[in-house]
Amino acid sequence: MKTALEGIFGLGGSPGGTPDGSSRSVRKAIGLCHSLLTQRGEVSGVKIANETLDIYRAMDEDSRSEFFTALSRNFSPDPEAVGLAGEAYSLDPSAQNLARLRDVAEPPRQELFRRLNTAPGATRTLVDLRGEIFAGLSTHPQWEPVAADMGHLFTSWFNRGFLVMRQINWDSPASILEKIIRYEAVHEIHGFSDLRRRLAADRRCYAFFHPALPDDPIIFIEVALTRGMSAKVQPLLELNAPVTDPARADSAIFYSITNCLDGLRGVPLGSFLIKQVVENLSVSFPNLRRFATLSPVPGFAAWLQKHPRYPALQEQLSQPDWFEDRAIAASLATTLVPLCAQYLLAAKSRQEPLDPVARFHLRNGAELDRINWLGDTSAAGMQRSFGLMVNYVYRLAEIEQNHELYTEKFKVAASTSIESIFKNSRSNGLKRID
Amino acid sequence: MKTALEGIFGLGGSPGGTPDGSSRSVRKAIGLCHSLLTQRGEVSGVKIANETLDIYRAMDEDSRSEFFTALSRNFSPDPEAVGLAGEAYSLDPSAQNLARLRDVAEPPRQELFRRLNTAPGATRTLVDLRGEIFAGLSTHPQWEPVAADMGHLFTSWFNRGFLVMRQINWDSPASILEKIIRYEAVHEIHGFSDLRRRLAADRRCYAFFHPALPDDPIIFIEVALTRGMSAKVQPLLELNAPVTDPARADSAIFYSITNCLDGLRGVPLGSFLIKQVVENLSVSFPNLRRFATLSPVPGFAAWLQKHPRYPALQEQLSQPDWFEDRAIAASLATTLVPLCAQYLLAAKSRQEPLDPVARFHLRNGAELDRINWLGDTSAAGMQRSFGLMVNYVYRLAEIEQNHELYTEKFKVAASTSIESIFKNSRSNGLKRID
Amino acid sequence: MKTALEGIFGLGGSPGGTPDGSSRSVRKAIGLCHSLLTQRGEVSGVKIANETLDIYRAMDEDSRSEFFTALSRNFSPDPEAVGLAGEAYSLDPSAQNLARLRDVAEPPRQELFRRLNTAPGATRTLVDLRGEIFAGLSTHPQWEPVAADMGHLFTSWFNRGFLVMRQINWDSPASILEKIIRYEAVHEIHGFSDLRRRLAADRRCYAFFHPALPDDPIIFIEVALTRGMSAKVQPLLELNAPVTDPARADSAIFYSITNCLDGLRGVPLGSFLIKQVVENLSVSFPNLRRFATLSPVPGFAAWLQKHPRYPALQEQLSQPDWFEDRAIAASLATTLVPLCAQYLLAAKSRQEPLDPVARFHLRNGAELDRINWLGDTSAAGMQRSFGLMVNYVYRLAEIEQNHELYTEKFKVAASTSIESIFKNSRSNGLKRID
Amino acid sequence: MKTALEGIFGLGGSPGGTPDGSSRSVRKAIGLCHSLLTQRGEVSGVKIANETLDIYRAMDEDSRSEFFTALSRNFSPDPEAVGLAGEAYSLDPSAQNLARLRDVAEPPRQELFRRLNTAPGATRTLVDLRGEIFAGLSTHPQWEPVAADMGHLFTSWFNRGFLVMRQINWDSPASILEKIIRYEAVHEIHGFSDLRRRLAADRRCYAFFHPALPDDPIIFIEVALTRGMSAKVQPLLELNAPVTDPARADSAIFYSITNCLDGLRGVPLGSFLIKQVVENLSVSFPNLRRFATLSPVPGFAAWLQKHPRYPALQEQLSQPDWFEDRAIAASLATTLVPLCAQYLLAAKSRQEPLDPVARFHLRNGAELDRINWLGDTSAAGMQRSFGLMVNYVYRLAEIEQNHELYTEKFKVAASTSIESIFKNSRSNGLKRID
Repeated sequence: MKTALEGIFGLGGSPGGTPDGSSRSVRKAIGLCHSLLTQRGEVSGVKIANETLDIYRAMDEDSRSEFFTALSRNFSPDPEAVGLAGEAYSLDPSAQNLARLRDVAEPPRQELFRRLNTAPGATRTLVDLRGEIFAGLSTHPQWEPVAADMGHLFTSWFNRGFLVMRQINWDSPASILEKIIRYEAVHEIHGFSDLRRRLAADRRCYAFFHPALPDDPIIFIEVALTRGMSAKVQPLLELNAPVTDPARADSAIFYSITNCLDGLRGVPLGSFLIKQVVENLSVSFPNLRRFATLSPVPGFAAWLQKHPRYPALQEQLSQPDWFEDRAIAASLATTLVPLCAQYLLAAKSRQEPLDPVARFHLRNGAELDRINWLGDTSAAGMQRSFGLMVNYVYRLAEIEQNHELYTEKFKVAASTSIESIFKNSRSNGLKRID
Repeated sequence: MKTALEGIFGLGGSPGGTPDGSSRSVRKAIGLCHSLLTQRGEVSGVKIANETLDIYRAMDEDSRSEFFTALSRNFSPDPEAVGLAGEAYSLDPSAQNLARLRDVAEPPRQELFRRLNTAPGATRTLVDLRGEIFAGLSTHPQWEPVAADMGHLFTSWFNRGFLVMRQINWDSPASILEKIIRYEAVHEIHGFSDLRRRLAADRRCYAFFHPALPDDPIIFIEVALTRGMSAKVQPLLELNAPVTDPARADSAIFYSITNCLDGLRGVPLGSFLIKQVVENLSVSFPNLRRFATLSPVPGFAAWLQKHPRYPALQEQLSQPDWFEDRAIAASLATTLVPLCAQYLLAAKSRQEPLDPVARFHLRNGAELDRINWLGDTSAAGMQRSFGLMVNYVYRLAEIEQNHELYTEKFKVAASTSIESIFKNSRSNGLKRID
Repeated sequence: MKTALEGIFGLGGSPGGTPDGSSRSVRKAIGLCHSLLTQRGEVSGVKIANETLDIYRAMDEDSRSEFFTALSRNFSPDPEAVGLAGEAYSLDPSAQNLARLRDVAEPPRQELFRRLNTAPGATRTLVDLRGEIFAGLSTHPQWEPVAADMGHLFTSWFNRGFLVMRQINWDSPASILEKIIRYEAVHEIHGFSDLRRRLAADRRCYAFFHPALPDDPIIFIEVALTRGMSAKVQPLLELNAPVTDPARADSAIFYSITNCLDGLRGVPLGSFLIKQVVENLSVSFPNLRRFATLSPVPGFAAWLQKHPRYPALQEQLSQPDWFEDRAIAASLATTLVPLCAQYLLAAKSRQEPLDPVARFHLRNGAELDRINWLGDTSAAGMQRSFGLMVNYVYRLAEIEQNHELYTEKFKVAASTSIESIFKNSRSNGLKRID
Repeated sequence: MKTALEGIFGLGGSPGGTPDGSSRSVRKAIGLCHSLLTQRGEVSGVKIANETLDIYRAMDEDSRSEFFTALSRNFSPDPEAVGLAGEAYSLDPSAQNLARLRDVAEPPRQELFRRLNTAPGATRTLVDLRGEIFAGLSTHPQWEPVAADMGHLFTSWFNRGFLVMRQINWDSPASILEKIIRYEAVHEIHGFSDLRRRLAADRRCYAFFHPALPDDPIIFIEVALTRGMSAKVQPLLELNAPVTDPARADSAIFYSITNCLDGLRGVPLGSFLIKQVVENLSVSFPNLRRFATLSPVPGFAAWLQKHPRYPALQEQLSQPDWFEDRAIAASLATTLVPLCAQYLLAAKSRQEPLDPVARFHLRNGAELDRINWLGDTSAAGMQRSFGLMVNYVYRLAEIEQNHELYTEKFKVAASTSIESIFKNSRSNGLKRID
């Protein structure tokens, strides 16, 4: 990160490509990467990997950018070799020729990352590196193959079989809890006392850890054990809410799930975590009858604002704290809930729902069960979706079928009540908008 | 494993392929493997993987054989798709076309094993499965691609970055020590009291563990901390040898290194372990001046017997306990040591030394330092190499160069004394034999 | 704890001794205590102990008060038996008669507490019980023998040999850190972020734990690793103070030491903790040249206010935030520092310094080194001692002698500078006051 | 330990009391003990304690003997002070005078051991020291008060509340298992493979550990989970006995209990361990209906041989392997079983059974249930009790009453079958012998 002064006066940094300090470190690092792939790399790999990553860690933003570009330009398969192997295979589709084709088609970049990973602490650095690539991808689309190659490796390295689920509680190290507070992406955690309530006897928090990143939760989920299915999130988050007896709960409400490391984007984690938590809770609390989420509808407000067919609506919604006025709120409810049903059931992107949370849970085999009016009246909740929240229900017996219908036919599993809200909304004149 | 009776009378088993019990389980398992690769596998993967592996674990030898064959026949890339992608790439070598080619050239078998690995305890089962494939590979060469695909994954999964080195000592769990006793491949360990001496203050034992196999050492090495470089192994193994002060040692002698799991064949482990041990010992014992092995010469006797140019020699060697007769031993020494130098320096297989231990250490960058007469007078030692042992020395400053010269030019790093034994042997009329 | 309403209207509680609910539980508990000392207690001790402690834990304040009184009345030695044994010993001072005398003179209460301690979790409950006795001792002096008997046991149970020192850092469980925050008695900790600074790289926090109370620090100390001896505590506590390199520190400043459990009063802990910390830090940081405290002078203000010979002084000190006025502060410094030297060197209680912190460190063999003007300008610091703080220095070579001179002759080890401030103060007309 | 040669020729050692090497170390140690009790001891206690124990550990047998004698002569209460305090108390039996009397009557030796215990590793050394005192007590009865004072402390230090029960299994450290093998006092364990069977799925082994001795089991018990109450021990110990399903067991048979550290003699451990094991097993195996021992009768053979009223019997028993002759065995059974009933029910020492194992279990509230003919045909078993073994049954509902009747009236709880064997034996002419 450049300081303001450096930014203004051009001190410290330098245009990419010129033979200055930052470029020297990039050239050094790329040189080491090349030698890591030679014979020398075989015998001194750990040392070279270590040195490379140390240089990378010390790079400033500009150098990193150069480095990523260099990674994307180098370490790709040799097109000629691939062409020849392709032709050989066409002439004689033998196992040998296939193996040869596969070998030359695999980017050397993958072997590079495998060898970099031999250094102590490398896995975390590589995950972070991929996170930075994503952060710059919109302006540097040429980095995409680097992210893709790392993604291929990470899917293998972060295989479910290597993940360990641990419960997060008040006896967890403060350094871990601090990360939970920092990473939480759905319902902000305001410090340790706020977190403490979320770890009380009627709450659960579970995280996946990977042995190579022992101090970093990579994904975590927060659960409330309640009587009845929660429709509103504020009571769950309320610091002074009385702690109830979890043994008497009949519902496990998943009210937050957060991926911690952006570098692991695309690696399947959430679905495995939810299933493991359902399994563990079922054993610990035999009285649980219902596993459901209380989820945000992150794209609803943005979607609605793009379709300004309801000028009156927009005006009402622009009033601050409109939801505290009962009359306005009541009137808005009759409009917004059906519109939300439309958003969830009819607004699509390539046949799948526009809403990313809906995509995630439906793909996992959950059913869209209920839309909750004023489910989240926090500033973030109002901004995301005018306070609306949704329950997705996980029913063991239906998960597989829901998933198959969804993935094969893009069929959205929804409760009859939501279906009828949706149908009524159309006949009532709310038009389909997408 | 079939009992003898079953083998003779054909009881219990059944000819492969007929619709009997064992085949049913194979068909069931293969069916599950297929569905693991479908949409259903995405949402219920852990469950299906678990079921598949349970069936596999319960299979008898014949069924496993059928199962491996089915694995090798199925789950291969589609030649036609590969052909088309190859052509497309030839016409337009774009990144997209390359990615597409790579995708269709990757055997679905790899994704299959990744998904199987999501089940609890799967990693160990998969490693064992590959071990069994190796055991049957000579009679079922068609299984080779299965072993290769697993090898590709295992190299990624068992990356040095994911391995944890632990010292094995007398406070280790008995269940781990029992495995050390069972696996030890070089100098047999006769029970716990024998092992105990190998874990005393002047000995060290280190192993790599993988987090997914917490109770299984995957490779381990035994080290003696001595004054002077050991030439004979029996004094190191002697139960009642006085325990010396390790702080006064100047040499670390690696006298045994054992790969525990045959299913990990081809995954680079030994070289990483040796380097880590050298590093750790250097820190703990600053007086250490020399890191060397005391190694067997496993192929020497077999090689010599294949070249029966020395009938008198063969006769002498056929006497039991010839080495206890000083006169005979002295006479044999003058012949066998030069022959061993020839074996190590001149007997080749595809430009590399015939001897597998020599290949391993030379490839790692060690130098062939000394041939030790009557270095191992155990039955196994006499049978392997007429009691000869070898010291390979690891010198930090020379490892890289040795490795490069070896891997690029097959140059064997050897001490001048060995070189001169070798040269004299030729001029003395011992002929080169290979 | 009775609510105010209960206290005022006599609801909920009842006068001691009447056969009401609370007394029933006391009678039950005392009955169980008696049977714990019988044969039944030998075989069913754990069960009876458990039941007794459960009843005690459920008692309200009044019942506990009754219970303590009953404990003090019962379970004392039998005076007659002691008298007889004393006479027998006088007539024949044999080992047998001495043993007999000792046996009858030991209060059965001690055996009672030993047997109560066999129940799971008992140790913590017994420590708390003694804490409550101390809290009520001023109004119930008759409870003193109970506290004394428990103290005798605790000194044995919490012997240094059974205590484990653990470093407290940001990886410690949040539940432990929360206790550190709550217990801290010298410089209040304002939540986790405040504590976090105190656990950064240039700070250390160590605590003693006892195996029977694994989740409870019983005493802890906070240390700053600094260059030069700190004179003021605010810079040490400052949240945003830059973290310095501990390896370059030459001083370890003990700026806070807190006993966590009042029930362990009188059990020697602090001196052992300081010595262990000095030992550990010396090993980890060979550059450390000085081990000193930055200590409060808790009794100074109270002492000065009891001796109102300086009306002008009192008036000045009654101004809020007087210390922010440079002129006033400078003028006060010339008066207060010498007075503080008088307080520390001349104000005594039974030959020892009045100030409890001085007594603690001097008894440990430290030397009174320096009085620091405006060393602690927090509200608590101003109230305790008008902002004055003191450095006591621990010099390994002098600790024993200082301790002996102190304990035998009440000689206070003080630096020459403090001695001369003290002497000048007298000749300058500040009179000795005690 | 002196070698035989040293013993015979007086080499190496020297007569106690002369100013030689060994005595110098004793004088040094005793001097340190004295200073440990002074002011210096308060401030430098850990250091002095450490030094004292180091000297003690390096002492040879003779020096230790001197040291124990010096410990017993010094550090006793001052008879005069005790006399005066006794008189003062007689004149005025106040709490103060009682406290004073108690203080002077407590041997300073207790405070000495408390202070010695502050050194690292001291607890183990002190326990061993007491063990050595016991070993020499018959020839040095004057050491008894030292053992008694330590016993008083140890009972407090090794209070049940401070002991941790851990299961011993095949995953326990080899160093712990080795101690189990070495300590086992009832049925010798022949190496690790023998022990392994005793840790299989249908066996349990539990031990108490003390936090200050983390690597030393202090008492352990071995349990077989069986169908039906075992009458013979060899089938339980048989290496190749098939491992049965513990979930189907109805009986837990305690077939061995061993105190590991002689220095803890007199500290109640066994009874607490048995009760905790019964509790844990009841929870883990709800099908268990019976908790019983299969116990040796260690004193039976010696008792019988002291009463040689049965010359024919003695002659038969002197035949080697008599028990393998069915006819002889059958004839002996009819005599020995009733005699054993007499031994257990009628042979007394101060009103309690002569047999120490009987005393232990009866005192714990167990019932003498069954005498088993040829229950232990090992050499040790034949020598102890002509192969007889006994089942003592622990019935939760009767334990308290049995214990009370035993401790108060010396009433032995025995099954009706044993009672009737006993009665018949008398009327059949086998005379009571004690």
